[in-house]
Amino acid sequence: MQASELSQPLVFRRVLLTVDADDPNSSIRAFRYAATMAHDYQIELCIVSVLEDDGVSIFDVMTPGKIDKKEDDVRQTVEDYMTIAEKLGAEHVTGLTVGAGDVDDVILERVIPKFKPDLIVCGSDTEDASHRVPGAVGLRIAKRAHVSVIVVR
Amino acid sequence: MQASELSQPLVFRRVLLTVDADDPNSSIRAFRYAATMAHDYQIELCIVSVLEDDGVSIFDVMTPGKIDKKEDDVRQTVEDYMTIAEKLGAEHVTGLTVGAGDVDDVILERVIPKFKPDLIVCGSDTEDASHRVPGAVGLRIAKRAHVSVIVVR
Repeated sequence: MQASELSQPLVFRRVLLTVDADDPNSSIRAFRYAATMAHDYQIELCIVSVLEDDGVSIFDVMTPGKIDKKEDDVRQTVEDYMTIAEKLGAEHVTGLTVGAGDVDDVILERVIPKFKPDLIVCGSDTEDASHRVPGAVGLRIAKRAHVSVIVVR
Repeated sequence: MQASELSQPLVFRRVLLTVDADDPNSSIRAFRYAATMAHDYQIELCIVSVLEDDGVSIFDVMTPGKIDKKEDDVRQTVEDYMTIAEKLGAEHVTGLTVGAGDVDDVILERVIPKFKPDLIVCGSDTEDASHRVPGAVGLRIAKRAHVSVIVVR
């Protein structure tokens, strides 16, 4: 057993929090965990929400552009989470909203290469989530991502 | 958005770390994460290793009893991890070894009800693990457990 290697602290420094704007209850505990880590360790926190649509586009929260109602709601949700995280003392918070046909594909193929997280924080879809199989997104990301993943229940 | 609920810190207080005595490299980062949390937040940490055999038995690390070589090795591995965690300043460390036919069944049906974790920390099986599909145990636990699970890669 390599005691010297095992004795090194391990803190995740770039945390990607996925939130579901359609299922806010699923993200409460995931947000609280991510915000606690962001406050206590001053890590980089990126909050991402995927807007399910037919196209694929990535835009930063603050980037002006073509806005429709649904896109605006998702953007606002991410901004609200960012505001709360910053009020809690997190200093390095960014937001991202993504339009995509498939949530885990776009997280894996677009968001991870862009933000380069060392931890992905997912909630666990609740019964409120009428649009997909409960809990499936976090698990699919956990299965396919090459970085650490936490499913917060 | 419930800002007051979202503003509560969330720290996991009862952490169950699963280690694979046959694949020590898979557990290094998982151990480091769990030990860091145990040190920084003084949580309860239980380190469990499953000895794959035909029967099912749960025994605390320090309980004397019928010992064979393989069981002794697994027990020693858990004790070694416990010693390192305690040297790192973790104050509430327990160990558990389990004999079982199926790793995730015994974790879910025997260990979780016994220890009542709020977070399960799993490593990601490496190529050294010749005895099962890489990464599968943590993912199966993440899929089936009703508590939070982190797969540390």
